[in-house]
Amino acid sequence: MSQVFNFSAGPAMIFPEVLQKAQNELINWLNQGVSVMEVSHRGKYFMELVTQAEKDLREVYNIPDNYRTLFLQGGARGQFATIPMNLIGKKGKALYLNSGHWSATAAKEARNFAEIDEITIVENGEQTRITDLDFSHIADQYDYVHYCPNETISGVEIFDVPNVGNAVLVADMSSNILSRQIDISKFGVIYAGAQKNLGPAGITLVIIRDDLIGNARKETPSIWNYATQRDADSMINTPPTFAWYLCSLVFKHLKEIGGLEIIEKRNALKAQTLYDYIDSSKLYRNVVAKENRSTMNVTFITGNPELDAKFVAESTAAGLQALKGHKVLGGMRASIYNAMSQNGVEALISFMKKFETENLPQ
Amino acid sequence: MSQVFNFSAGPAMIFPEVLQKAQNELINWLNQGVSVMEVSHRGKYFMELVTQAEKDLREVYNIPDNYRTLFLQGGARGQFATIPMNLIGKKGKALYLNSGHWSATAAKEARNFAEIDEITIVENGEQTRITDLDFSHIADQYDYVHYCPNETISGVEIFDVPNVGNAVLVADMSSNILSRQIDISKFGVIYAGAQKNLGPAGITLVIIRDDLIGNARKETPSIWNYATQRDADSMINTPPTFAWYLCSLVFKHLKEIGGLEIIEKRNALKAQTLYDYIDSSKLYRNVVAKENRSTMNVTFITGNPELDAKFVAESTAAGLQALKGHKVLGGMRASIYNAMSQNGVEALISFMKKFETENLPQ
Repeated sequence: MSQVFNFSAGPAMIFPEVLQKAQNELINWLNQGVSVMEVSHRGKYFMELVTQAEKDLREVYNIPDNYRTLFLQGGARGQFATIPMNLIGKKGKALYLNSGHWSATAAKEARNFAEIDEITIVENGEQTRITDLDFSHIADQYDYVHYCPNETISGVEIFDVPNVGNAVLVADMSSNILSRQIDISKFGVIYAGAQKNLGPAGITLVIIRDDLIGNARKETPSIWNYATQRDADSMINTPPTFAWYLCSLVFKHLKEIGGLEIIEKRNALKAQTLYDYIDSSKLYRNVVAKENRSTMNVTFITGNPELDAKFVAESTAAGLQALKGHKVLGGMRASIYNAMSQNGVEALISFMKKFETENLPQ
Repeated sequence: MSQVFNFSAGPAMIFPEVLQKAQNELINWLNQGVSVMEVSHRGKYFMELVTQAEKDLREVYNIPDNYRTLFLQGGARGQFATIPMNLIGKKGKALYLNSGHWSATAAKEARNFAEIDEITIVENGEQTRITDLDFSHIADQYDYVHYCPNETISGVEIFDVPNVGNAVLVADMSSNILSRQIDISKFGVIYAGAQKNLGPAGITLVIIRDDLIGNARKETPSIWNYATQRDADSMINTPPTFAWYLCSLVFKHLKEIGGLEIIEKRNALKAQTLYDYIDSSKLYRNVVAKENRSTMNVTFITGNPELDAKFVAESTAAGLQALKGHKVLGGMRASIYNAMSQNGVEALISFMKKFETENLPQ
């Protein structure tokens, strides 16, 4: 099999070094003669693994001491329900900022559990752009304000943090967690499904400020009660140990390559290279305003759906995988998460240039 | 590393053939140049995998056509909440049969969501035994009757199916699913965390009769709404793809070795060999009545806690892993799920004999 590059939006590619290590020790972990999948989560070695994983994550992401990290099951969509179950309190309602498919889906799920107000913060004119993010004058009415800083389908990223005054800000960072340095103290809760930047599908990271834990309603499943899971080391039930193990390898790898400072530079360069080429091309276009272009998911179209389909077929055949855009939008999407290399982006651009030469209308 | 045998109660050992295959193709699945972890769950190849997995499971377990299979996240403890959220209806209450730790824990969680009646069906006298299982005279009052046919901590198994008349019977089969042939039509819902007989931790199998789907209360998280997940092929959110893949390999392996007929014979022989030795020994004893002795979790004690601790230390050093009993009970526990070989049981008995010779009080 010749070299391939995987632009899947998620489950997405994992650092090759991490996968290679996982393969090497899959049936004999720590020379115990068994797989990491086959040992007790409460055993000495696995407990050491999760302790080190948390330490590495805290260091890499610069997580303040008054925040807990929880590793749960259920993905971001599980958290769509878990967040209102745990955070709706005295005020009885929450505000959801709608910037696209995923933030809207979060709001829809939350309505099953609480009164939800929703404000659209995206304009879909000639260009897609995020509108004003100052909610400090109204945020106090709500138990929390929720938003999604990176919409994977449209490739829209919100780089400024919404101003919610002293209210609690909750962010679904599934698709841009650990992609750059952020000031975690601006957030009450950050959560993310693992399958883009953390590891494989099946584990969910929650970073939550201490004082927000302990207010869950009675009808909260114990595996999603933040207080229960905090007190049980995220092990009130058997955790997804293999997924956790892979996350631990990813955190370690991030440290080894220089942390988020390096990752952020790499991600910026990958995105800039690809957007610059798209802007310079006569065939492709990206419709997101420059200040909201995602560094993680780069969407582009030719303007001709048949040509888009031809692009997807030929790029796949050339070893550039999963470039088909989400069915809602059509076109193409290159997801270039942390694990994608600059080489992968260059290979994509080479193919795009060749395809442009062959298909540009005369 | 010399040969080891892993008696962990869960996460437990996985068939060596399955782990070997997973290792071989971990970074290059189906010659695509990527890992099964890195591909879209909605892509052609992964959808083929889940279709085949369901087909294999249905064949192996003889699942009737009017039952659905769902693969969810959250483990059995997630289902402890999910079951009442989906099944409590017109009658407004459920009956839980208490046979030990796990069935009691299920009842406790359910109380957060519904009115629960509880009946103890275990006697802890000189021997631990299950009492009468005829509830046909009262079952009609309840939306469902819940029980746990194998209690992993005490090693108590319930081989007869409780008589609940026409009421809905729900079973937590986490620790004995696929261990022998059963008549699925006697059950409304069967559920199981994967980490004993199905695959790695992080995926949960639900087998549910068609007519029981569609009655979830509004405050049910969409990832746990049986109707939502049925309609979405268990993919309303990104599923734990790697865990699902391993389950698919386990189902295929079960078929290849001759299905549950063979597994059931093997399991019966393993358990019989071990219990026979324990009964014949002067040092060890098992306190469960013969008709309720678990084929999956064999508990034994010497009667001397210090000697038990010595046993655990020396057996671990000899490559017989994870024989320490649950902290609630102490003593020893050998979990001998489907993947444990007769050789493993024989190796354990050899060690037990040697330890008996060396330590039997004069």
